[in-house]
Amino acid sequence: MSLTLGQIVESLGGTLVEGQPDRVIRRIAPLESADADSISFLSNPKYLPQLAASQAACVVVAPAQQAAAQARGACIVADNPYLYFARLTQLWKRAHADAAAAGVHASAVIHPEAVVHPSATIGPLCVVERGAVVGAGTVLKSRVTISEYCQVGERCLLHPGVVIGADGFGFAQERGVWVKIEQLGRVRIGNDVEVGANTCIDRGALDDTVISDGVKLDNLVQIGHNVHVGEHTAIAGNAGVAGSAHIGAHCSIGGASNILGHLKIADGVAISPTSVVMRSVTQPGLYTGIFPLATNAQWEKNAATLKQLHALRERIKALEKALGAPRSTNGN
Amino acid sequence: MSLTLGQIVESLGGTLVEGQPDRVIRRIAPLESADADSISFLSNPKYLPQLAASQAACVVVAPAQQAAAQARGACIVADNPYLYFARLTQLWKRAHADAAAAGVHASAVIHPEAVVHPSATIGPLCVVERGAVVGAGTVLKSRVTISEYCQVGERCLLHPGVVIGADGFGFAQERGVWVKIEQLGRVRIGNDVEVGANTCIDRGALDDTVISDGVKLDNLVQIGHNVHVGEHTAIAGNAGVAGSAHIGAHCSIGGASNILGHLKIADGVAISPTSVVMRSVTQPGLYTGIFPLATNAQWEKNAATLKQLHALRERIKALEKALGAPRSTNGN
Amino acid sequence: MSLTLGQIVESLGGTLVEGQPDRVIRRIAPLESADADSISFLSNPKYLPQLAASQAACVVVAPAQQAAAQARGACIVADNPYLYFARLTQLWKRAHADAAAAGVHASAVIHPEAVVHPSATIGPLCVVERGAVVGAGTVLKSRVTISEYCQVGERCLLHPGVVIGADGFGFAQERGVWVKIEQLGRVRIGNDVEVGANTCIDRGALDDTVISDGVKLDNLVQIGHNVHVGEHTAIAGNAGVAGSAHIGAHCSIGGASNILGHLKIADGVAISPTSVVMRSVTQPGLYTGIFPLATNAQWEKNAATLKQLHALRERIKALEKALGAPRSTNGN
Repeated sequence: MSLTLGQIVESLGGTLVEGQPDRVIRRIAPLESADADSISFLSNPKYLPQLAASQAACVVVAPAQQAAAQARGACIVADNPYLYFARLTQLWKRAHADAAAAGVHASAVIHPEAVVHPSATIGPLCVVERGAVVGAGTVLKSRVTISEYCQVGERCLLHPGVVIGADGFGFAQERGVWVKIEQLGRVRIGNDVEVGANTCIDRGALDDTVISDGVKLDNLVQIGHNVHVGEHTAIAGNAGVAGSAHIGAHCSIGGASNILGHLKIADGVAISPTSVVMRSVTQPGLYTGIFPLATNAQWEKNAATLKQLHALRERIKALEKALGAPRSTNGN
Repeated sequence: MSLTLGQIVESLGGTLVEGQPDRVIRRIAPLESADADSISFLSNPKYLPQLAASQAACVVVAPAQQAAAQARGACIVADNPYLYFARLTQLWKRAHADAAAAGVHASAVIHPEAVVHPSATIGPLCVVERGAVVGAGTVLKSRVTISEYCQVGERCLLHPGVVIGADGFGFAQERGVWVKIEQLGRVRIGNDVEVGANTCIDRGALDDTVISDGVKLDNLVQIGHNVHVGEHTAIAGNAGVAGSAHIGAHCSIGGASNILGHLKIADGVAISPTSVVMRSVTQPGLYTGIFPLATNAQWEKNAATLKQLHALRERIKALEKALGAPRSTNGN
Repeated sequence: MSLTLGQIVESLGGTLVEGQPDRVIRRIAPLESADADSISFLSNPKYLPQLAASQAACVVVAPAQQAAAQARGACIVADNPYLYFARLTQLWKRAHADAAAAGVHASAVIHPEAVVHPSATIGPLCVVERGAVVGAGTVLKSRVTISEYCQVGERCLLHPGVVIGADGFGFAQERGVWVKIEQLGRVRIGNDVEVGANTCIDRGALDDTVISDGVKLDNLVQIGHNVHVGEHTAIAGNAGVAGSAHIGAHCSIGGASNILGHLKIADGVAISPTSVVMRSVTQPGLYTGIFPLATNAQWEKNAATLKQLHALRERIKALEKALGAPRSTNGN
């Protein structure tokens, strides 16, 4: 597995400085573990000290770091080194992976009334049910289920164990017994969507669940029925989105965070990992709600006090009144 | 796909008012997206404004809303419109879905010593191991595993990727090394249970893990070994129940909530989404423990103060003492 | 299914007291549900009252409890009864389970360039991709995927639905669109590792994701790319470890807890269930961060006050200043 520096800049652009085009690169590596056969990259100026110490044959840097990089040896100057690195991993994979032949693995179970584009790849032990549609260039890795009438767009990548179109969780009650609401909607997934391993996207109850173009879902994510996820939003592992929530475009939803049902999240919202969204979020920005970690002993004291927090506020108010203190402007 | 209003009331009851029995319905839809071929429903009086504006051919309403509905056009009057809607989705599915033929898909792997009722449906790429039992009318969608000697009752529905009867997480320690406790119990699932996609129910260590009649589990739920879940309890997506916890009947366990091991939850308890149950809950009611979301800047200030919460209480006590303030009745 | 007390002590050691070696044991059971054909164990002196009441034919106890146990009837005295119990479950399983024949189930899909040790067991509907390695004595239960070039050591046990080596969640941004970083690393799993049902371990971006010898992962755990998990660490169900986190040896990571990316956790750290690790943990010990559960009404009051917590601290400071109170030593 190798590429020359010349092949790299020919394919991806950028300017090769202080380097020979025929220099052979055998690995892509982080700065600190790169060796003399590696290409590396500097995406954040805070890693400049690691740049100087790196053994890499060549480092991709932004124009502002060219001087520092050049002092060390060969570099490729590119406007966005991290994006260049992403493109380089893609070039590397194309150059070295077997051409994954499109087509349906013999062990997959495809309903005769499913529509699978000839350029799609259906891996081993997948299930594509009646009326389901899989678009051009889409790859289902092993053991993916696409349920009845659900649609997956073009150039999507679905990892092992994904379940598209299981029933949403909907029941009415009749004297304490749950009565199933049949889930009559579908899942519609746009183009260039990636879905992580064992992630589940439920079909809609009446209307559809919608995953827009360019959305990226990590592993073990739960998307409830009738959720809409806007374009180019990313949702990290273990997160959950409850039924009928609408998430805007270009959002970043942190790992293990949860969005409760029927909420609306504006475009450009970032939710910190493990945080819980209980009300709609109308303004872009970063939102957080995490109980801080402490030693168990400290936590026990603070958690016990937390149960009296409202009472503490009342005691502060009483003290302020007793002292004739001016009311705080910070609330009451 | 269509049913007439006459067919609907003939099957499900209710009183058709201001409508023609031969009116053809082609869709079930929410009030706001219903068109002139749709039937819709009003389950909550707060949506009355949407009723007036709806284009639906017919709306299912409670007796109290008959006047309002009648003013708009055709309606079906039923005591519990949401339950009527659930029954209507079932009628719709029966009328339009292919008769899912009972039987075992050719790609499923059924151990010769497993017992599968002839009226059960085993979907593609399922695994039913030695001694496992699948009851009458139960449906295993694709890629479900029922491990050795586990039992699934009648009329259950298990969604893709479900794993019944993997080993519980049990180990002893010997000088820092984990020694496996073989999990010798089973999973026993009652009748009319639904299990969501990629949900896992572990087998018991010595005794069995028990899921009672009418329980509904959503996707990606983790049920530990020796858990008991009481009748008609519902557990939403991403929730976790640790080993040997006993949950009562008619409970609602919110999404991504967690119940720690060996606890008892009384009948009729509701746990809010993402909340953590650390002690047994002996009284019915709604319980919550969620860190409120804020902008990240606000959260940082509050989270920093939270770490000193116990100290703040001490400072309030000192102030009260200095002022000779009366001790609060809210605690100390 | 039965063993005699004599067979048990012959295999596992310990001293049989007040019992006949030819006494037949038909069940292993907890003290409270044991019957006259059962063997049970007392691992914690706090269960001594249950010992006296137990119907068990024989109880395994520590030397300190021999007198109490002997007063009741037959016992086996062993230094660590819980460890003895673990070994007994293993003996029981070996004596009664069918010899699980090593080999590859006919329905599994094994790439011709995968390397599966002849003593490994590959269950139904597993997928082992090109270049993957499965070591001696390792068992893949049903529906496990081992992706390209990933390595699983010896004597490992992987439960149904496990996904080893899906792509890590890595993207660069180009004008709001995610650009995939191909994940070129592998997953390397050591010896004696157990992986629970539907758990996912992602492949590394450039370097490998590493799971060390003796690690135990429960169900539905998410391990991100380039994570390292140290020897004999246990991670309970629903937990998540974000990319590039390094967890030490002999740690216990509670269920549904989350460790954010790029952090380091020292050896011997225990994290309580559902807690969030936001900073590296350098000292062994037990760490916790859980919002306490309360009735919903109480929680609403406390959560509302929590949003003003920083402001409350300012009000306390103002009161202290007004009173001329001595500054607390507990912080400011």
